[in-house]
Amino acid sequence: MVEEIAVLGAGSGGCATAADLSLRGYKVNLWNRSYDRIMPILKSGGIELTGRVRKQGFAKLNKITWGDHIKEAIQGVDVIIITVPAYGHEDVAVRCAPYLHDGQIIVLNPGYFSSLEFAKTLRSMGVKRRVKIAETSTLTYACRKVSPFKVDVIITTKFFLFCTFPSKDVEEAIDIFKQLYPSAIQAINVLEAFLNNPNPIVHPIGVLLNLGCIERLERFYFYKEGVTPSVAKVIQAIDNERLALCKALGFRQISTKERLIRGEYAKEGTIQEMYNKSVLGCIKAPSTIHSRYITEDIPYGLVTWASLGDLLKVLTPTMKSIIQLFSVITQTDYYEKGRTVKKLGISELNAEELNRFLAKGNT
Amino acid sequence: MVEEIAVLGAGSGGCATAADLSLRGYKVNLWNRSYDRIMPILKSGGIELTGRVRKQGFAKLNKITWGDHIKEAIQGVDVIIITVPAYGHEDVAVRCAPYLHDGQIIVLNPGYFSSLEFAKTLRSMGVKRRVKIAETSTLTYACRKVSPFKVDVIITTKFFLFCTFPSKDVEEAIDIFKQLYPSAIQAINVLEAFLNNPNPIVHPIGVLLNLGCIERLERFYFYKEGVTPSVAKVIQAIDNERLALCKALGFRQISTKERLIRGEYAKEGTIQEMYNKSVLGCIKAPSTIHSRYITEDIPYGLVTWASLGDLLKVLTPTMKSIIQLFSVITQTDYYEKGRTVKKLGISELNAEELNRFLAKGNT
Repeated sequence: MVEEIAVLGAGSGGCATAADLSLRGYKVNLWNRSYDRIMPILKSGGIELTGRVRKQGFAKLNKITWGDHIKEAIQGVDVIIITVPAYGHEDVAVRCAPYLHDGQIIVLNPGYFSSLEFAKTLRSMGVKRRVKIAETSTLTYACRKVSPFKVDVIITTKFFLFCTFPSKDVEEAIDIFKQLYPSAIQAINVLEAFLNNPNPIVHPIGVLLNLGCIERLERFYFYKEGVTPSVAKVIQAIDNERLALCKALGFRQISTKERLIRGEYAKEGTIQEMYNKSVLGCIKAPSTIHSRYITEDIPYGLVTWASLGDLLKVLTPTMKSIIQLFSVITQTDYYEKGRTVKKLGISELNAEELNRFLAKGNT
Repeated sequence: MVEEIAVLGAGSGGCATAADLSLRGYKVNLWNRSYDRIMPILKSGGIELTGRVRKQGFAKLNKITWGDHIKEAIQGVDVIIITVPAYGHEDVAVRCAPYLHDGQIIVLNPGYFSSLEFAKTLRSMGVKRRVKIAETSTLTYACRKVSPFKVDVIITTKFFLFCTFPSKDVEEAIDIFKQLYPSAIQAINVLEAFLNNPNPIVHPIGVLLNLGCIERLERFYFYKEGVTPSVAKVIQAIDNERLALCKALGFRQISTKERLIRGEYAKEGTIQEMYNKSVLGCIKAPSTIHSRYITEDIPYGLVTWASLGDLLKVLTPTMKSIIQLFSVITQTDYYEKGRTVKKLGISELNAEELNRFLAKGNT
């Protein structure tokens, strides 16, 4: 039975996770890299939780730490849930490595296919402890911070994939994780989970076709207003490219529409209608281009998918066009900066070999 | 001496051309394909001209015709100025062919590299008359219709290139055209003129990054508000790709900034500042995606440039990304629909052979 949990990252996702699990009776520690963000929570001693959760109210936390004090947060816990952005996973791996112990389950939430790198970092730091590294396809809550220690849950994710790397370890891990999140669905491997992350499908293009507005500081609702007919058409094209990747790897082909319906985000309709009328309607568009919608979902999302496409001979012209335009706009070489199959050390594998590697942890 | 001129196309550019030349003392005939657009001008007998022109006022026109009555407009004139969109050039060539006569100068304004196709159409229709076919790099007026027979000129173009196809015929033609537009600059050939068309550089990307706004029916000024920092960065990237094409062909490398300054559109500054503060500030963004900014500047602009890039081994990743996204958005295969080097019959030539062909009219 899970008793104690560490949540690493005190953004809206981390706060929702920590508060919800605490109110559900678990002992929860919260850690954040920077002091500034954790300070108001430290002062209040916990997080105020509202919205669509089992129990609303003030969630008292067990330990609240930051920066170099990660040991206090993770020592002795059963599950470590990491909610920092993908570009922070490596840093968290380095910080955690000295304090992990046998039997702990580390869940990258969402994973963005970071578990290969996470495992490699632990190995390179000489970690001998038998921990299990897992990923979810998407954050387990759609939520937003309404103040530095108040978070509002729009929906608890009803449909998401979960797997460990290597996937041979999945059974025990998913049994434990399902105590916390019963709706987790077992993926074939972490790559199947990653290919079902909705963020790279909708975030970058929603920003791109609304960038004029964003730069003129006109505020709008990202899904309710930002998903116009053209945005919806490009979402569909990206989705088709993503589904072709899933097919080439022998994975389920779960369309964005199917995910929106099964996740209870929206009722059946066109892509545009479904997003416009979804429960995510209250989410505002980012107010700047320096947002996770770009800084995470291009280098750790579309770049990885497009590079997988090159490896598997699946065409991804729409993904590549979006990457190219953001490369120009942010003056960043995302193939250099981002997570390609080459950087992951899997650029010599075919689909079968890749799946075998993800199952066993070695080729 | 030029006495009589035909203007084919009664959009804002055609109306400005017809009215300005009429008020400057030329005998001007105006033709338009559709009756609907010409009808108000036919009723009023001419066009009201305002703005930055030598002479404002009501310009009486000599003949006003439409549809199948093109003969009346072009017979006996010295110069035929064609202001229809690039996708209408072929149709106008077919309509004109039977009625052309020796010595006439046909000016595609702007040309979009249509003169090869125009010449081919005349040849295939058995035209033996010795006419000269020329192109301008850009429309000779920045203007907008304020009513169906009223046009306001924002600026008479101060800097544009002009050449005939083949360019060996240019001297006589430019002497005549300069009587009408003294600021015409002789280009090496029609391709150099086409590569200095500003529209494909700024129109598609200005629409793309503001498409959310356009589809939410929010009106904004295209240059004053629509050219945000990100739009400016992509304009610069497209400009660099275009300049690399110019270099590969041995043409002048006239940057967008230089053109804006020499054309008296704007004072020196950043690309964004120059557009935001340019004399074009009053031009509104298109209210729909079904605009010439897309339907002309993708298939007859960026597609031709990108396909030239492939021919000359010049990389055009930014142009190609914009084409790809609009292909998805408008569900159109622009390489199939648009004007590629293959369709132009020049896909087997290198830069030197291409320039020789454009000079002589045969390889």
